[in-house]
Amino acid sequence: MESFFEVKRPDEVFEIIDRLHPTGEETISLAEALDRVLSRDLTAPEDLPPFFRSTMDGYAVQAKSTFGASEGLPAFFELAGEMPMGRADGMVVKEGQAVKIPTGAMLPEGADSVVMKEYCHRLDEATLEVARAVSPLENVIQPGDDFRQGVVFLKKGRRLRPQDVGVMAGFGMMDVPVFRKPRVAILSTGDEIVPVDRAPLPGQVRDINQYTLGALCRKAGAEPLLTGLCPDDMDSLKERVQRALTRADSVWISGGSSVGTRDLTLRVFESLPHFELLVHGISISPGKPTIIGRSGSRTVVGLPGHVASALVVAAVFMTRIIFRLSGYAGLPRNWGVEVEALLSQNIESANGREDYVRVKLIETDEGLTAVPVFGKSGLISTLVDSDGLIRIDMNSEGLYRGDRVKVTLFDFTGGGFR
Amino acid sequence: MESFFEVKRPDEVFEIIDRLHPTGEETISLAEALDRVLSRDLTAPEDLPPFFRSTMDGYAVQAKSTFGASEGLPAFFELAGEMPMGRADGMVVKEGQAVKIPTGAMLPEGADSVVMKEYCHRLDEATLEVARAVSPLENVIQPGDDFRQGVVFLKKGRRLRPQDVGVMAGFGMMDVPVFRKPRVAILSTGDEIVPVDRAPLPGQVRDINQYTLGALCRKAGAEPLLTGLCPDDMDSLKERVQRALTRADSVWISGGSSVGTRDLTLRVFESLPHFELLVHGISISPGKPTIIGRSGSRTVVGLPGHVASALVVAAVFMTRIIFRLSGYAGLPRNWGVEVEALLSQNIESANGREDYVRVKLIETDEGLTAVPVFGKSGLISTLVDSDGLIRIDMNSEGLYRGDRVKVTLFDFTGGGFR
Repeated sequence: MESFFEVKRPDEVFEIIDRLHPTGEETISLAEALDRVLSRDLTAPEDLPPFFRSTMDGYAVQAKSTFGASEGLPAFFELAGEMPMGRADGMVVKEGQAVKIPTGAMLPEGADSVVMKEYCHRLDEATLEVARAVSPLENVIQPGDDFRQGVVFLKKGRRLRPQDVGVMAGFGMMDVPVFRKPRVAILSTGDEIVPVDRAPLPGQVRDINQYTLGALCRKAGAEPLLTGLCPDDMDSLKERVQRALTRADSVWISGGSSVGTRDLTLRVFESLPHFELLVHGISISPGKPTIIGRSGSRTVVGLPGHVASALVVAAVFMTRIIFRLSGYAGLPRNWGVEVEALLSQNIESANGREDYVRVKLIETDEGLTAVPVFGKSGLISTLVDSDGLIRIDMNSEGLYRGDRVKVTLFDFTGGGFR
Repeated sequence: MESFFEVKRPDEVFEIIDRLHPTGEETISLAEALDRVLSRDLTAPEDLPPFFRSTMDGYAVQAKSTFGASEGLPAFFELAGEMPMGRADGMVVKEGQAVKIPTGAMLPEGADSVVMKEYCHRLDEATLEVARAVSPLENVIQPGDDFRQGVVFLKKGRRLRPQDVGVMAGFGMMDVPVFRKPRVAILSTGDEIVPVDRAPLPGQVRDINQYTLGALCRKAGAEPLLTGLCPDDMDSLKERVQRALTRADSVWISGGSSVGTRDLTLRVFESLPHFELLVHGISISPGKPTIIGRSGSRTVVGLPGHVASALVVAAVFMTRIIFRLSGYAGLPRNWGVEVEALLSQNIESANGREDYVRVKLIETDEGLTAVPVFGKSGLISTLVDSDGLIRIDMNSEGLYRGDRVKVTLFDFTGGGFR
């Protein structure tokens, strides 16, 4: 495979990523199903609910017996008993009869509606006065009102939310067919890098990338395999990548930042069986020297070594790889959480390159404001101090102070709002 | 404690929730730190990075030796060696000398800057031609450029993101002080409810709430304890709640929907030691019959039994309880992920009540459109078919077709964007 260096535009890279396939299927238990992605359409095995249920505390009747009833001219019913919770009781409601019923109970045979107890008044043990007419099915849920037997109630590719887990519970589905979580092996190279638990000697630094990238993988729904450090030489790296490929769906090398290390990564990839180079350089900043390739069904990635570059590239492109390997149907609508803010100062940008600018969000009198956090891409502090990224288009020469910009947040919490 | 029924406004309920305290502290390993909340300020134990590093492949020099150098009038340097990666080498750079250096390596003593290799040309083994002047510290990261020893680099109450995990790795912090995850015991009552793995008889339904609420808890960062079903009687419920309180920070009862069951829940709460009733009814729809109370440091909650009501109340208010118990400093800025959409039809709303309307999002020619999903609150399908909620203010009598509304999404994925 020839190694040529043709930098791709971000939209071309996204298109390439979108052609990747899910990693495989597995069956998991209902209790583990949250946030997993369905690998098959699910069909309702029965009507949900399976019977007529009352949605109110009141009296089950035949609606026609109430017709014409009003405050001034109530209808009178014969009290025929009380429906127990959670049981069919063999009780039957005939014309002119009423049966007391709690919310959630099954309607007795013959009844087609429920009068709320607020409109009912017991005259004696056997007689009920009803001051309001109801129509058939009023205050009643019918069999199949949630889902009718045989319909597809959740589709393949759906990422399961609490209510989706709930409906599977409602159908008693204890086993859930999902796509396997992609396993991503993360490898750091660089002769200056030492493991996190070792005290670095002069000239050495601890391995940050493996932790930032591993955490990002986990957040995006993959299972990171931290495979440790690797010396900067062809044989070691090749052996480590080959070994990682036996147990991972994707291998990410966060290379040293020197040109030599980057070339090494590419040479190792090119030695893999059936290797296909998909991307060699992306026209973005930071993160240009990014490599994406394929070895059979495995995706291999060479990331920049600078901590900030590596994490920005991973946030923008690698999460997308994870989403594709995870089997999402199309893209989740809400992929990437954005807030709008005012830009606090002018930012220049080179034409022909997409810039991802780290920004901090602050509240000012004019509203939420995005303040650029400049700094070398080798500094992790630029990311720690930032709330998110703004994207400057390839065809733009920059943004102006006061522009309304969209900030994609590095983090978010879920559920609830105020 | 007197039991009076004074329905509270949502803003009053949020204020009450905001007075709750975090559950406690624990120490966890760095590998588990993602998404956890720091319980203490973290102080830099040393300078990061600890030494002068090159950010480029090039030659380490004294900047003053390059002054005046240009393409037309290059400066000449004596080549004094090559800096190895990851080691201090005892090498010294004097005036007029240059040492070859890769990106990320430690600067040799005496050098204060790096000339990119693109501007250098080796004339012979011992001589380097430099066609560009650099200023002191150019292409160099200084000790402490990320963080200086002694500064607080991450604050108490911070929810840890990938880059935050990364900087802790950079400092070699293997143990992380965090707030304990709140443990939430979830209990379903209702004589018509059967466990998920049992086939319901006529009149019975499977337990949906325990699964929807448990999943929501997990999503919000709590640890759900599914404690099973409980019959609708005072003694059983009291015993189960007391037992749950010995191991949970919060107990949620998703009651039957009948008035009798709701009264039962309140009576059980009132029997708890040091019980304080905080909220008894919220002026919202769905979800009005919600109870929030406190027994010592434990928060107890009675949720509506209808599946949709229970989940809406939990999404809006219970996640907030979890966030407070989790020790977030203030509210996360990005709490609740919103998108803007056009409303597809008029919606009426009662004055004096806040309405949460389930909506589905669809793309139309006019843009993203929110289509209300109406349906009884006992139906889980109304939630399964919805993408999120819109809130209609207490003082509003409704919304109009074409209004721009904010939809808070039930789900989102994280990281990355396009």
